[in-house]
Amino acid sequence: MIRVGIVGATGYGGAELVRLLVGHPGVELAVLTSRSEAGRAIDTIYPQLRGYCNAVLEDPEAADLTGCDVVFFATPNATAMAAAPKLLEAGVRVIDLAADFRLRDAAVWREWYGIEHGCPDLLHEAVYGLPEVNRAAIAGARLVANPGCYPTAVQLGLIPLLEAGAVATTGLVADAKSGTSGAGRKAAVGTLFAEVGENFQAYGAGGHRHLPEIEQGLAAAAGEAVELTFVPHLVPMVRGLHATLYARLREPLAEERLRTLFESRYADEPFVDVMPEGAHPQTRSVRGVNTCRLAVHRPVDGDTVVVLSAIDNLVKGAAGQAVQNMNIMCGFNEDEALMAPSATP
Amino acid sequence: MIRVGIVGATGYGGAELVRLLVGHPGVELAVLTSRSEAGRAIDTIYPQLRGYCNAVLEDPEAADLTGCDVVFFATPNATAMAAAPKLLEAGVRVIDLAADFRLRDAAVWREWYGIEHGCPDLLHEAVYGLPEVNRAAIAGARLVANPGCYPTAVQLGLIPLLEAGAVATTGLVADAKSGTSGAGRKAAVGTLFAEVGENFQAYGAGGHRHLPEIEQGLAAAAGEAVELTFVPHLVPMVRGLHATLYARLREPLAEERLRTLFESRYADEPFVDVMPEGAHPQTRSVRGVNTCRLAVHRPVDGDTVVVLSAIDNLVKGAAGQAVQNMNIMCGFNEDEALMAPSATP
Amino acid sequence: MIRVGIVGATGYGGAELVRLLVGHPGVELAVLTSRSEAGRAIDTIYPQLRGYCNAVLEDPEAADLTGCDVVFFATPNATAMAAAPKLLEAGVRVIDLAADFRLRDAAVWREWYGIEHGCPDLLHEAVYGLPEVNRAAIAGARLVANPGCYPTAVQLGLIPLLEAGAVATTGLVADAKSGTSGAGRKAAVGTLFAEVGENFQAYGAGGHRHLPEIEQGLAAAAGEAVELTFVPHLVPMVRGLHATLYARLREPLAEERLRTLFESRYADEPFVDVMPEGAHPQTRSVRGVNTCRLAVHRPVDGDTVVVLSAIDNLVKGAAGQAVQNMNIMCGFNEDEALMAPSATP
Amino acid sequence: MIRVGIVGATGYGGAELVRLLVGHPGVELAVLTSRSEAGRAIDTIYPQLRGYCNAVLEDPEAADLTGCDVVFFATPNATAMAAAPKLLEAGVRVIDLAADFRLRDAAVWREWYGIEHGCPDLLHEAVYGLPEVNRAAIAGARLVANPGCYPTAVQLGLIPLLEAGAVATTGLVADAKSGTSGAGRKAAVGTLFAEVGENFQAYGAGGHRHLPEIEQGLAAAAGEAVELTFVPHLVPMVRGLHATLYARLREPLAEERLRTLFESRYADEPFVDVMPEGAHPQTRSVRGVNTCRLAVHRPVDGDTVVVLSAIDNLVKGAAGQAVQNMNIMCGFNEDEALMAPSATP
Repeated sequence: MIRVGIVGATGYGGAELVRLLVGHPGVELAVLTSRSEAGRAIDTIYPQLRGYCNAVLEDPEAADLTGCDVVFFATPNATAMAAAPKLLEAGVRVIDLAADFRLRDAAVWREWYGIEHGCPDLLHEAVYGLPEVNRAAIAGARLVANPGCYPTAVQLGLIPLLEAGAVATTGLVADAKSGTSGAGRKAAVGTLFAEVGENFQAYGAGGHRHLPEIEQGLAAAAGEAVELTFVPHLVPMVRGLHATLYARLREPLAEERLRTLFESRYADEPFVDVMPEGAHPQTRSVRGVNTCRLAVHRPVDGDTVVVLSAIDNLVKGAAGQAVQNMNIMCGFNEDEALMAPSATP
Repeated sequence: MIRVGIVGATGYGGAELVRLLVGHPGVELAVLTSRSEAGRAIDTIYPQLRGYCNAVLEDPEAADLTGCDVVFFATPNATAMAAAPKLLEAGVRVIDLAADFRLRDAAVWREWYGIEHGCPDLLHEAVYGLPEVNRAAIAGARLVANPGCYPTAVQLGLIPLLEAGAVATTGLVADAKSGTSGAGRKAAVGTLFAEVGENFQAYGAGGHRHLPEIEQGLAAAAGEAVELTFVPHLVPMVRGLHATLYARLREPLAEERLRTLFESRYADEPFVDVMPEGAHPQTRSVRGVNTCRLAVHRPVDGDTVVVLSAIDNLVKGAAGQAVQNMNIMCGFNEDEALMAPSATP
Repeated sequence: MIRVGIVGATGYGGAELVRLLVGHPGVELAVLTSRSEAGRAIDTIYPQLRGYCNAVLEDPEAADLTGCDVVFFATPNATAMAAAPKLLEAGVRVIDLAADFRLRDAAVWREWYGIEHGCPDLLHEAVYGLPEVNRAAIAGARLVANPGCYPTAVQLGLIPLLEAGAVATTGLVADAKSGTSGAGRKAAVGTLFAEVGENFQAYGAGGHRHLPEIEQGLAAAAGEAVELTFVPHLVPMVRGLHATLYARLREPLAEERLRTLFESRYADEPFVDVMPEGAHPQTRSVRGVNTCRLAVHRPVDGDTVVVLSAIDNLVKGAAGQAVQNMNIMCGFNEDEALMAPSATP
Repeated sequence: MIRVGIVGATGYGGAELVRLLVGHPGVELAVLTSRSEAGRAIDTIYPQLRGYCNAVLEDPEAADLTGCDVVFFATPNATAMAAAPKLLEAGVRVIDLAADFRLRDAAVWREWYGIEHGCPDLLHEAVYGLPEVNRAAIAGARLVANPGCYPTAVQLGLIPLLEAGAVATTGLVADAKSGTSGAGRKAAVGTLFAEVGENFQAYGAGGHRHLPEIEQGLAAAAGEAVELTFVPHLVPMVRGLHATLYARLREPLAEERLRTLFESRYADEPFVDVMPEGAHPQTRSVRGVNTCRLAVHRPVDGDTVVVLSAIDNLVKGAAGQAVQNMNIMCGFNEDEALMAPSATP
């Protein structure tokens, strides 16, 4: 039984961690914090937890997190980097669901996030928590940077092609679409139902913070720099993220050969599902679960390969992947608390 | 390990049974049937089952269901009544998710469903599968009539008041709202996204088939006939059912006293959650789970008590309740395969 | 050509006024104000206005509204009551879309809105702007209190029955459902897409501010006090409001007779549509338009009459009705700028 | 006053034609046909038309369309090509909203639509009804092929770049997303609310029928063949279509220069709106109206230009563009019956 703390337990990512971990036989939810809701029981904010968890939220300043074995940060950017050093020193392992430790280069971090990084020395120790790439390093890590939602879907969809050298590293396109829970539980006009409902639009077309994170991961897979155009869109749904990926084939490869690349790459992965010929993954098929569903197409036998990648932004794109990382770090079965089919419809 | 058959496994109710039962340690899914999809694996129709169940669907005429311990009918009305007698004779226990065995009176059945009942002699043997009312009888039943979705939400919301004699038995109002999955996986113009989306309307205001079922149950609770007005509405969402119930107090009772009536009545019920003062249950808090959430209000201290009742129409309103009934019939823990918090948002 | 001012032009009600009035041949949009967006052109906030209106928003303190013929207040409660006296003195006619002048009794206002009324002496001069009841008074009014969205739908649905004495004045039930634009363009967690989407719930069941406004109007129709239970609900859609109304018949009246009551009462009303037998009005059929659609049912020939009432909460429930009032006050055709069929689907 | 006939008036495209044309001062709706609903008044099917049009639907076989000046076909593919020759002979002008006359090459038509074309000789007379390209030819046409919804959004977004030679003609990507009304008012499981709601997916990734139509138009603009990858997606909304377009710059051009290309190209177009720097067009801003909103981005000053293109699939993508074509053909103002801002939210 490990003692787990969650900083920022009342955001969507934090609450999803609670939902998943109440069913984990090896975990005790020892500390839940919330700056704005300290003193309230979490099930008064999330009634679906009634009967499962009525822990009282603590103020993050007052909470004693050093007694935890693992602490998750489900907080805004720049929060974990202030608190992580002290926790690591106390022997606590840290998993940050925000962006603080995702980029290796502090200068790039500053460029995209607008402030100096608080502990740049930790950037190289931090392990990027994409188990399909870094499983061994995650197992031994003290500090894991949980990937962003878009970067997870995009990297899982392009890595097999780039590792195999099957596609050009320039002219890559990631057209991504997310449900609105990705914006978090934060009062804002732009994500009101009355703004998002019965509406569709792109955002951040000029450049989105997830771009350097994605390019960093793809470059590692390709063994060289890559050039990607990434445009996110907002879908009138709560959960779900779909990336449609376009890459130019270096030489003609039959669609079936391309699918085999994916099947081989992910043969032993419990949370990546390569779908059969002609499939179009639906986000609802991964709603609430930690699976990434992929399908590969080569339209009209042309030069462009299209990969469709679907995840739940709050699960494989956030809390589920964080639990997967914790399972790996702590020696649990990797799929503990993460196995159950999605409810469809 | 019991052997389970599901007739009509590709409708929404059938697929939900599969989803719940793949996680049940005491159940083997022995036979899944589908008239229209026989020969296909179920996970080609419901990709969320990939990795959990790839059983091949059988034609219901050809399938051998007599080797099962329990058979669920997740079929249109008038299907189970044709097949149940033979199965019961073979010692199979039957749970019908349709309406065939819900009404005790064959004449009322004919009036509302428009055809003669196929085995009226079984109507009195059949047990109405609302565990909160009939648990003991369900435990010993060969044939269970699983309640309708609206009747479940309405009965659970009114029974405590009627049993206690706290409200008049006339002038009851059940204003009910359901997501569109209640209409089933059936090609129809009326439930297209383009018809239902960004729209709200009542239907069946002149009289809906669930009315006699509800009145039958409420009369049993009240010990006398009741007079209820029931108007269902269609909500632009997939899952979820909310009933807003209005009854006239026989004498003034403080709201707190009314809530105590509910808390006492459901104190030992694993799947009924009476919420605290001022609460408004959200359907999303029961999405995918077997809980019914209730809240009691007495607006402006007047003569009318208002009960808010929320369920998932496909779970407590259909497949979840059916599994709960099976658990009771077969001696499993009543909540086996039914315990996990809902994913919110 | 009259000069019109809109205070609060960037809220949903204000923007809807602009949308309707840009097509009004007798109106010049002279002043648009916004506290938070002063200095910006309105079509940078509402791009659908590009090509129709690029007026620059003024600060409400700085704007000269006294040069207008008519000023609309599309503001939070307690705003118009501070500014109206000075405008009226200057000869400007005022239409308030908020609640400031809807209740005749300042004590009731204080009870429900929590503050002292700023100009109680104007409460009796103010005309309640429901044209179907007060057309003549509106024509001569200096100050019109535009009805709330729920009160409009509920009153139009019950007035014919109460005026005719056909139903009891006690035990009335108004179960109402609204799209989320009714909550306004205001950053708030509760109306985020991620909170409202794929969800349904009641709110304010213990007592909602629209209750005294509705009861005031119904009492006037009935000639005596009425007792109503009113429960609003939030629907996962942007626009649309549906009230399902329940009343007890004083004596049995055939459904057709009941419908005739409505048809006679509204025979000359351009914006009330009494639908034929068996109809269930859809909110989408009134999306963007000023019509209220009504249908009357007497389920299973019982003692309860059910009226279904559908409006667009932003049009007949707010800006459309306000324009209708302005048309009446200024001698335009009552339906000027308000005639066009809704786009369905 | 011209006499207009609509074949297939009860589909979504047909009903949208009726909605737009009831407000057209120069049009008499002389004949509305419907195979399945003949004999019913159209406002019993589309209640939003109550008070605007109660024409009785005629059987298409029995209806006399030869007395019309213009006949619209809002029918499935392969319907207009059977009826058009006779109508043209009778002097009737024909506008087909389906695909029958969009492709110039009968062999390509057969390849993508699976049947022989019924009147291949008319393919070269037919004018492709994209006014921004073919205005003069449309004015003189007897037979107009109204563009598909996806082709409209994609062509308007890429033509300025291709005409100017600013981008490569290979490696073009059109990632397109449509609301579900694009699938028509047709009973089908795949477009049920319970299937589409809270879900997102691609479809037709292997090759969609709109591809040859788009490539034909883009090739004309480029003056050479183009190679485009086109992937459509289904959005959980009723109306709206958004295309995200990616093209490789032939040489670096500042984003502002690119935007100027668009502004110049569309300077005189009443229904194309080029948005300012940094904009992301929302589909709701064009809901119900005939405008195409475009925005141009050059992310991180790279080699790829991104164009965002938003239309209403039923208006500029179908019925609105058809009315625009009719206005051009018949000498009306081009924007007659098409001018009114969209209702937002």
